[in-house]
Amino acid sequence: MILPSPLPAVFPGALASLLGPRAITDPVALEAYAWDNTGLRFCPQAVALAESAAEVARIMALCHRHRVPVIPRGAGSGNVGGALAVRGGLVLSTQRMQRIVAIRPEDRYAVVEPGVVNNDLQEALKPHGLFWPPNPSSARTCTVGGNLAMCAAGPNAPRYGVTRDWVLGLSAVLADGTAIRTGGKTTKGVVGYDLTRLLIGSEGTLAVVTEAILKLAPIPPARRLLRAVFASVPDSVQAISALMAEGTPPTAIEFLGPATLDLLRQSGGVALPAAGRALLLVETAGDDEEVDRLAAGILRDLERFHPLEVVRSRTETEAAQVWEARFALAPALKKLAPKRVNEDVVVPVSRLAELIAGLEALSTTSGLPIANFGHGGNGNIHVNILVDPSLPEMARRLEDLLDKIFALVLRLEGTLSGEHGVGIQKMPYIHNEVDPATMALQRSIKALFDPLGLLNPGKIFPPGSV
Amino acid sequence: MILPSPLPAVFPGALASLLGPRAITDPVALEAYAWDNTGLRFCPQAVALAESAAEVARIMALCHRHRVPVIPRGAGSGNVGGALAVRGGLVLSTQRMQRIVAIRPEDRYAVVEPGVVNNDLQEALKPHGLFWPPNPSSARTCTVGGNLAMCAAGPNAPRYGVTRDWVLGLSAVLADGTAIRTGGKTTKGVVGYDLTRLLIGSEGTLAVVTEAILKLAPIPPARRLLRAVFASVPDSVQAISALMAEGTPPTAIEFLGPATLDLLRQSGGVALPAAGRALLLVETAGDDEEVDRLAAGILRDLERFHPLEVVRSRTETEAAQVWEARFALAPALKKLAPKRVNEDVVVPVSRLAELIAGLEALSTTSGLPIANFGHGGNGNIHVNILVDPSLPEMARRLEDLLDKIFALVLRLEGTLSGEHGVGIQKMPYIHNEVDPATMALQRSIKALFDPLGLLNPGKIFPPGSV
Repeated sequence: MILPSPLPAVFPGALASLLGPRAITDPVALEAYAWDNTGLRFCPQAVALAESAAEVARIMALCHRHRVPVIPRGAGSGNVGGALAVRGGLVLSTQRMQRIVAIRPEDRYAVVEPGVVNNDLQEALKPHGLFWPPNPSSARTCTVGGNLAMCAAGPNAPRYGVTRDWVLGLSAVLADGTAIRTGGKTTKGVVGYDLTRLLIGSEGTLAVVTEAILKLAPIPPARRLLRAVFASVPDSVQAISALMAEGTPPTAIEFLGPATLDLLRQSGGVALPAAGRALLLVETAGDDEEVDRLAAGILRDLERFHPLEVVRSRTETEAAQVWEARFALAPALKKLAPKRVNEDVVVPVSRLAELIAGLEALSTTSGLPIANFGHGGNGNIHVNILVDPSLPEMARRLEDLLDKIFALVLRLEGTLSGEHGVGIQKMPYIHNEVDPATMALQRSIKALFDPLGLLNPGKIFPPGSV
Repeated sequence: MILPSPLPAVFPGALASLLGPRAITDPVALEAYAWDNTGLRFCPQAVALAESAAEVARIMALCHRHRVPVIPRGAGSGNVGGALAVRGGLVLSTQRMQRIVAIRPEDRYAVVEPGVVNNDLQEALKPHGLFWPPNPSSARTCTVGGNLAMCAAGPNAPRYGVTRDWVLGLSAVLADGTAIRTGGKTTKGVVGYDLTRLLIGSEGTLAVVTEAILKLAPIPPARRLLRAVFASVPDSVQAISALMAEGTPPTAIEFLGPATLDLLRQSGGVALPAAGRALLLVETAGDDEEVDRLAAGILRDLERFHPLEVVRSRTETEAAQVWEARFALAPALKKLAPKRVNEDVVVPVSRLAELIAGLEALSTTSGLPIANFGHGGNGNIHVNILVDPSLPEMARRLEDLLDKIFALVLRLEGTLSGEHGVGIQKMPYIHNEVDPATMALQRSIKALFDPLGLLNPGKIFPPGSV
């Protein structure tokens, strides 16, 4: 671990003169910005609560002048340590930049500041019959800025895609305080390089977003939810491929694997066929005429692959309850194994059955329990290893298991992260996926944007190597 | 104009020893690679017909060693001079790299080489019930590599988006011959920066794509085409906004403005209401049950805005004829004014009526005829100025008019190009749209990828400035 240099003596005063009480250097107050959803703790040396793009630029210019690292932060709900001050420095919180600057229903875009909470945006869009599709399960707390930083997704990606598909343009500030603009307000545009998508998913290592022009979609008025249980994982995976080949794909295809079903059975809330080894939650949406036809198509696809049962939610309330059960999985696992390791791998859908079989075999040989569930439509599985990684005897076994899991994923033509990002958690493994030449190019882009290495240092790129 | 340095004496021999007869330095044979769809002519000093990624790497390493510019080229169907050897050098043709390496229907992706003709790809995908959505009107000749270079689109963007939305990953070669890989085979992935979309639309100035993993969509089995004529441009534009707000948007919403309708009337092929000032071609697609419901929704949307008439194509043949008439517009205008100027501007849909009114006013004050048509659903209008720009007395008037058109577009929150790119044609205007700080960042990315300035020099970035 690299210990942070002390802040220059003049820095706290300079920051306070910029921000008044919104400059925080009191150790007790800093503590609130020391954590994220990983449970790890790295206390920053200062926090700046910016309220405007101009302030972000001034804060970053100040930090640049004094060589103070800047860690951009939304709600701190990330899963890979992306918002943690691993090398000290200043946490630049955008949580107070929560203005919805404009909603333009006739052009289906909204202009927002990065601190807007995902769910608050959805509420503001509702009266216009519109929504912004990225919907991570943390939507009630996470911010748009965090969604942009990590290229967040969520269950509705089978139909709607991910964050990068729903952004038209950005305003951002570079490490030295320079403001830039990317993209625009049109749904097409090819003037210059696509800096918009270079910044999306860059985890706050290239620039700090100060405003985003978000592309919106109409809210489908009706939804239908089906739950199917299969005795065979390969059957369930073939059903996913069939569902994804529909002209209008489902809005969500969630997959729950064998160990996860056992946990559901033990929790007692849901009666499931004893022979069931895989469960799919399939949701579709559309207007009132359309939605039953879509649901009938889903039923046909499911029934081709020998489900043990298919249950259809009859009401919105029933559907909401099923979704609650799905979203309760992560917290339930957290309760079961408070420091569980939650990975976020992806394989092409046709390789899902091999992935699940491989994970089960690795669970057996390692003796470590693994529960798998996730966004089946995209082959994006959250691999939950139900152990406490801080126990000394566990660390080595876990490391060995993770190596094998990632090797399996890459052998199946997959990727190490679908929506959580690299941060510090996947950093040691990025070389397994990205070849040396491409990695060198990625590093040189980082160095171009941030020659002093001040923007969210210690993330994505393993230290030590060039 | 910058005259090219002569090729180093050893270069032709070295190239020939790499490629044999696929290395061209004979002046007569070079001529075939001197033009594109702009009608401009810049003869390269050499042409390399690469047949593999390994050959591309060797050619580029050779050019790098000898400081010879490399101009990547697909079919030469581009509209902005992107494939022209404006500073001499070697044209690197990927037309012989036309293998379709893999089609994976169960994961809905294809792996292709860059020289595959768009339409050949579509034919190969048809038996699988799949297609690749980018469909420029040059689909019968243009290559996937060219589509990637320019982020091409076409009429079906209202539902399907553009090239950047349909690519999962790329293999490419950098200016010095280094091979890199971006993205992968999964529909989600957030490991490292989004180099895939940085390369898409970079017009061959950052790298040469040697293989692409393309995301595919199911072919909708049925289509319906409606043609609506409006007496008022603003009414037609409000109809476009309404159509784009549908849960399942039309596959195409083509707009034809007043002067274009006059041309259609004069050509005599189509009977149109005399008072008609705007025409919309609206196509939708879906399965057999769905498509009539979608068409009925379109009809309802159109009728809310007082059309003079709505005609529905009763058969596929009728629809094909209407599309032929639409696609015949560009060649017809070319016949009328062989050297017409064809711009490719975009505004938010709600500003379209202002754009068309502004263009009509500019046509009147300048005395230059302008015919407007294009992809209305995206606010992407092809502004056709029916004059010969090579006539000496025309050049100044045209330059003045273009300045005013671009100022109008930017005032309406638009962009200078939706799908044709910058190349050499929009290069003098890019500063009007992109602010100096962002422009400097774009240039520094170019310098990072290509420090010697060998890759497609003289494109996108105006010479002379830093």
